[in-house]
Amino acid sequence: MNIDFKELANKYQTPYYVYDFDHITAQYTELKESFRARKSLIAYAVKANSNLSVIKHLATLGAGADCVSIGEVKRALKVGIPSYKIIFSGVGKSDDEIREALKLDILLINVESAEELNRVELIAKELNKIARISIRVNPNIDPKTHPYISTGLHENKFGVDIDTAKRMYIQCKNSEFLEPTGIHCHIGSQLTQLQPIKDAIKIVADLVRNLKAIKIELSFMDVGGGLGIVYKDETLINTYEYAQSILDTMFGLDLTVICEPGRFIVGNSGVFVTKVLYEKVNGNKRFVIVDGAMNDLIRPALYNAYHRIEVLNDNKEFSDCNIVGPVCESGDFFAKNIELPKTTHNDLVAIYSAGAYGFTMASNYNTRGRVAEIAVENGIDRLIRRRETFEDLIALEEEFIK
Amino acid sequence: MNIDFKELANKYQTPYYVYDFDHITAQYTELKESFRARKSLIAYAVKANSNLSVIKHLATLGAGADCVSIGEVKRALKVGIPSYKIIFSGVGKSDDEIREALKLDILLINVESAEELNRVELIAKELNKIARISIRVNPNIDPKTHPYISTGLHENKFGVDIDTAKRMYIQCKNSEFLEPTGIHCHIGSQLTQLQPIKDAIKIVADLVRNLKAIKIELSFMDVGGGLGIVYKDETLINTYEYAQSILDTMFGLDLTVICEPGRFIVGNSGVFVTKVLYEKVNGNKRFVIVDGAMNDLIRPALYNAYHRIEVLNDNKEFSDCNIVGPVCESGDFFAKNIELPKTTHNDLVAIYSAGAYGFTMASNYNTRGRVAEIAVENGIDRLIRRRETFEDLIALEEEFIK
Ligand SMILES: Cc1ncc(COP(=O)(O)O)c(C=O)c1O
Ligand SMILES: Cc1ncc(COP(=O)(O)O)c(C=O)c1O
Repeated sequence: MNIDFKELANKYQTPYYVYDFDHITAQYTELKESFRARKSLIAYAVKANSNLSVIKHLATLGAGADCVSIGEVKRALKVGIPSYKIIFSGVGKSDDEIREALKLDILLINVESAEELNRVELIAKELNKIARISIRVNPNIDPKTHPYISTGLHENKFGVDIDTAKRMYIQCKNSEFLEPTGIHCHIGSQLTQLQPIKDAIKIVADLVRNLKAIKIELSFMDVGGGLGIVYKDETLINTYEYAQSILDTMFGLDLTVICEPGRFIVGNSGVFVTKVLYEKVNGNKRFVIVDGAMNDLIRPALYNAYHRIEVLNDNKEFSDCNIVGPVCESGDFFAKNIELPKTTHNDLVAIYSAGAYGFTMASNYNTRGRVAEIAVENGIDRLIRRRETFEDLIALEEEFIK
Repeated sequence: MNIDFKELANKYQTPYYVYDFDHITAQYTELKESFRARKSLIAYAVKANSNLSVIKHLATLGAGADCVSIGEVKRALKVGIPSYKIIFSGVGKSDDEIREALKLDILLINVESAEELNRVELIAKELNKIARISIRVNPNIDPKTHPYISTGLHENKFGVDIDTAKRMYIQCKNSEFLEPTGIHCHIGSQLTQLQPIKDAIKIVADLVRNLKAIKIELSFMDVGGGLGIVYKDETLINTYEYAQSILDTMFGLDLTVICEPGRFIVGNSGVFVTKVLYEKVNGNKRFVIVDGAMNDLIRPALYNAYHRIEVLNDNKEFSDCNIVGPVCESGDFFAKNIELPKTTHNDLVAIYSAGAYGFTMASNYNTRGRVAEIAVENGIDRLIRRRETFEDLIALEEEFIK
């Protein structure tokens, strides 16, 4: 990554998120290439980073979109992802969302429960449309990741078990308004082991064969997202092996593979850059206080997530510290007990691997405006979302003051 | 609380937050009355619920505002809280924020480190203003609450120790641009024991006496916020005893007491109301999926916080379940392993005690618009923040699509 954080700080102020669009291109291309010679669709998981310019960039590369709300579907359409490359997943779709998804004629509605299938059928009937259905199978596999982002066990709310899935496909087949089109599984995020993925896909592929035997022919197999990235020193899944083992498992099946990577595509494209306000020592503890906070990047507070952090100065005098934001909670930290150089007022701090689940989870807690988002592509930077002002924050409340 | 959640759901759709303004009045009045006959200021901690109409309501009752960003200061001023009732706290104030606070001539800048005091002095000099200073003392007392909202131990980033505070007051006294005016401590949130508060205030009062002996006369003693509320079955601090023990500790000192309650004032005024989308069973686990999610109310995911939950139907058939939202994370839950009646599509669910640190921490994760906020006062409901639309969500990005 060749980005001049200082120059950007001068130009756009701090804190900010910056995304390296060339990295996004490289990640997308690597994965797409791994499936070379097979029908595949990389449906970017919009939830990871839903900035319109990020999605647009991926649209230009040929990506589809994996969406979990009608808002995400609209984002994808807005920047030119064709409806036939859009999937709508999620355990809790409202009637309005289902209605709109059907009207927009997207590729697949990825259904996560028998109850939901009934509602989709009802609404499709109401609209006199045929809903293309994919069913999310919960293969009951432990993905070996953080419990909050682990989704493939029965104790999770996601998907349905194999038997339920089979019954649901039969319901689809028997319905005028449902078309069994795809199958889906996703066992978790930030996966670094291939075996659980293989195990899950084997279960899914067996179901596909099973369905074939009863004349239910699917066209798409969505193997989910979840490919991990390096935050610290993780050994990653090799994308070529990943693709190969998926294709091996699908042997004999004529299916288009869909992957829904989010973090893998954008995670390491992003850096959250913040500025030192003060250093202080309380008791024996050194604190570096920066102008960014948990409302900007909640992953450390929420998942105890690790992000590599670098102070952009030349100081060689390192010592142990906590790096924290201005928010009035002890949960407002970016890292605890790390070695960082002594800093002075206005030194910049780069918090890496912040491209996924960073800005998308930002809030206005403490009436802090959400920060600017910047893209860098071919060495050229541009704003892709402007910093929120005080007026933005009160806009939806102001007219109601009595 | 006498609010017809169904009627509000019909009128404003779901999910929504509703606040009982009469409860806010009662809470404010109870606390204010406890300090009867003594000079006191209840400075509402805006961070707990920063909706302009909520602050305005408190302004009308005579409250001041405890703010932790210049945005919060502006909110308070906007709805008519006079500048002489506004305090600006926080461990990480930026230069711009300090500059604006000085220009706005608020009551106190509550300083949290020696380094910050130097910056305030510098900026006051630059503006040729006198900054009224309060210093946040970290009394090193364990408040016995959740570690994320515990703030009174040295291992926390908050405040300074007694010796540092003393040195800082002397610096104020010797400076043309600083006026030592107040003292502050806040040891944590959701406090249910009086003793730690007493212990902390004793330490602070001793320092005040100490300063008096060297001719530094303060006018305000800010005892912080933190009074707990009933989420489940907590035994609360009696406000009269609370006030009494503060006043006892201040014996012989002619100080105005400032309290900064947030949760106590608004916490139990608020209910988050959401609608059932589906029920499903995965493995042996029953899931009730509602249209609200962690992006709307993050306290369960972030602090594992308990909120009392009620399904608004007449079903008597209770069983164990998890109540979860549509967001694609296992962390997206409101409660785990609770007994709730069997529900059907569109049943309403009330999540209580959601008035504090609820909406203020909401995000747009999964491109979910933030929900409507409603006030009920004297039996009359009104919108105080409208629901976000898709257009609102993309407004700051749209113009930058290339
Ligand atoms: C169904 C589904 N697909 C894809 C993703 C994207 O995951 P990742 O960003 O780890 O690739 C998620 C993440 O939660 C998901 O739930
Ligand atoms: C300095 C300060 N004052 C007041 C409060 C308000 O706390 P509560 O809502 O518990 O009253 C907080 C909360 O974090 C705080 O940090």
